[in-house]
Amino acid sequence: MAGVAVIGVGLIGGSIGLAARERGLGPVTGWVRDPSRADRCVESGAVDRVAPTLEEAVEGAELVFCCVSVGAIAEVAARALEASGEETVVTDVGSTKQELVARLGSDPRFIGGHPLAGAETAGVDSARADLYDDSRWFLTPTSSTSGVLYDRLQRFIQAIGARPVAIDAVEHDRAMAAVSHLPHVLANTLVGQGLPGSERLGAVAPSLRDATRVAGSNPAIWAEIFATNHEAVTEAIGGAIESLERARDVIGSADPDRIASWQREASEWRSALSEIETMAGATHRLTILVPNRPGVLAQIALALGEAGVNIADMSLDPAPDMSSGAISIWVAGQDQADRAVECVTGLGHRVTLDGGA
Amino acid sequence: MAGVAVIGVGLIGGSIGLAARERGLGPVTGWVRDPSRADRCVESGAVDRVAPTLEEAVEGAELVFCCVSVGAIAEVAARALEASGEETVVTDVGSTKQELVARLGSDPRFIGGHPLAGAETAGVDSARADLYDDSRWFLTPTSSTSGVLYDRLQRFIQAIGARPVAIDAVEHDRAMAAVSHLPHVLANTLVGQGLPGSERLGAVAPSLRDATRVAGSNPAIWAEIFATNHEAVTEAIGGAIESLERARDVIGSADPDRIASWQREASEWRSALSEIETMAGATHRLTILVPNRPGVLAQIALALGEAGVNIADMSLDPAPDMSSGAISIWVAGQDQADRAVECVTGLGHRVTLDGGA
Repeated sequence: MAGVAVIGVGLIGGSIGLAARERGLGPVTGWVRDPSRADRCVESGAVDRVAPTLEEAVEGAELVFCCVSVGAIAEVAARALEASGEETVVTDVGSTKQELVARLGSDPRFIGGHPLAGAETAGVDSARADLYDDSRWFLTPTSSTSGVLYDRLQRFIQAIGARPVAIDAVEHDRAMAAVSHLPHVLANTLVGQGLPGSERLGAVAPSLRDATRVAGSNPAIWAEIFATNHEAVTEAIGGAIESLERARDVIGSADPDRIASWQREASEWRSALSEIETMAGATHRLTILVPNRPGVLAQIALALGEAGVNIADMSLDPAPDMSSGAISIWVAGQDQADRAVECVTGLGHRVTLDGGA
Repeated sequence: MAGVAVIGVGLIGGSIGLAARERGLGPVTGWVRDPSRADRCVESGAVDRVAPTLEEAVEGAELVFCCVSVGAIAEVAARALEASGEETVVTDVGSTKQELVARLGSDPRFIGGHPLAGAETAGVDSARADLYDDSRWFLTPTSSTSGVLYDRLQRFIQAIGARPVAIDAVEHDRAMAAVSHLPHVLANTLVGQGLPGSERLGAVAPSLRDATRVAGSNPAIWAEIFATNHEAVTEAIGGAIESLERARDVIGSADPDRIASWQREASEWRSALSEIETMAGATHRLTILVPNRPGVLAQIALALGEAGVNIADMSLDPAPDMSSGAISIWVAGQDQADRAVECVTGLGHRVTLDGGA
């Protein structure tokens, strides 16, 4: 890599910079809105230097990471694209993707991103080179996305320790609404409901403590997340309300048998959730022969994501000219490998499978 | 104490037995529904012996703890009261109190109880002498409750390491619905909503993991808890639905300022909840001169509970005849002491306050 630009050098951007520099993927140029923070960014080791303007920061960079707050990404990324050449990939790290990708996703150089990593404390002083180790990093390419740039971005993400996973932006936001945004909404609800009772009892029940840990998390950040994903979140809230209406019916019946079977259903769901966390298996390699059409890599990555296949690793051969070529992807477990073969074959590509090593 | 009977010797009952025997408060006689478990109960050290019938177990006991499942308590406690003399106090350890106290609370010897302690694993083999150390133990006396028997029970609970707190049974159930039962209902809701998204993402978000830890907890136990507290729980669910409808409005507006102020409200509630967990202060002693009327001790304990005063310790002088006498109570913190004085004075009793030691 000839150069990485990090726009916004806090916990997330600073950790990208630290990880890149530690692995020799730099130089890393930063940009921060408040120039008085520039020295601290360099001292922390997150960047080699801080450029005076966003435009100078992205100059000559092969990869631009926009690591500003969710509400500011669209404007910052648009400026970065404007200032960048054809060979630069611009990405971001925001928790919501649909609005952003609708606005910028037709540019072959823009790929939305969302690393599933974070920490309790913000700021460049909390940044760590190992923040992304073994964490999932969602990428939201579109049919316009350049295959070569997608490949470069996902290689970089792997190089700093994370696991890139392609997903459609709308689906990403809908899934995040259910697994992350709704839990935050319910935590807010619970803390309001549980506070008077806790005051009354002089004690906080462990279930309430757990369920409200994230209540009222950083209001500025979460306001932007909720606002940019308001459609999916309000839909998820609607689902939760329906589910609570059912719970009220079941519990209101005061029938222990009926309540127990409702409780068992939740128990089974909980087991299924635990299994997702412990999924693993031997690694298989698929080699896919592909024509060099724009978007073919993104198409395959998205189709595999839709089929529930998690790509552990990926490489392009020959890269980067791709007159025609092969894509190798690695997936974990026989089941994933079988699904991947079926899915890629279904797209009309020739696939060979080696594996189980 | 001349003898303790433990009816149902599992985790909770077994831990009461172990704690009592370790502190020389026994002998402890147990009773178990399944006689094949009797030897194991003795071997574990939870009881000195297991009686062949419930009636024989309670014979001569000063304290009877009914530690069977919530749905079975009423029948077991009624049998224990039937088999016991005037000087025996019968209590239980169930998570819900209103139905039980409505049925048995007019008997001066019955006092509902609910220790806020537990463990991941059930059964006498998981019982521990220190299970109740420093944990809250709710007691639900009524205006019929014998002061002498209440005093004996709360002394025993303190002697095994816990902190007895008097609370009205209806209020207890309403508060528990908000702080414990509702979080369980919402965890069930969330796990159902979050599972498809987690499958889709191949990952479980930390907020979802925390918020669903208790989803589908022991269906048999929770069916009885929900069934016996169905009124308060359905009311709490109604409150949660209203709160979610408000959240849907606020987030649906997509207005970051409006969402942020809603989020800040939750943040303040969360801070208030954290403070409840860390409340502490110097101990003050209140000495209250009281006439020997039935129910006066319960009246004071309940009034203090209602005023948000947590009684750290309590003693009766002279006990146990109480022709007239003094009650000493210890509370933590100047604020609690002031509230206690105001509250007890308001009941028409003379109070002296020593303290801040």
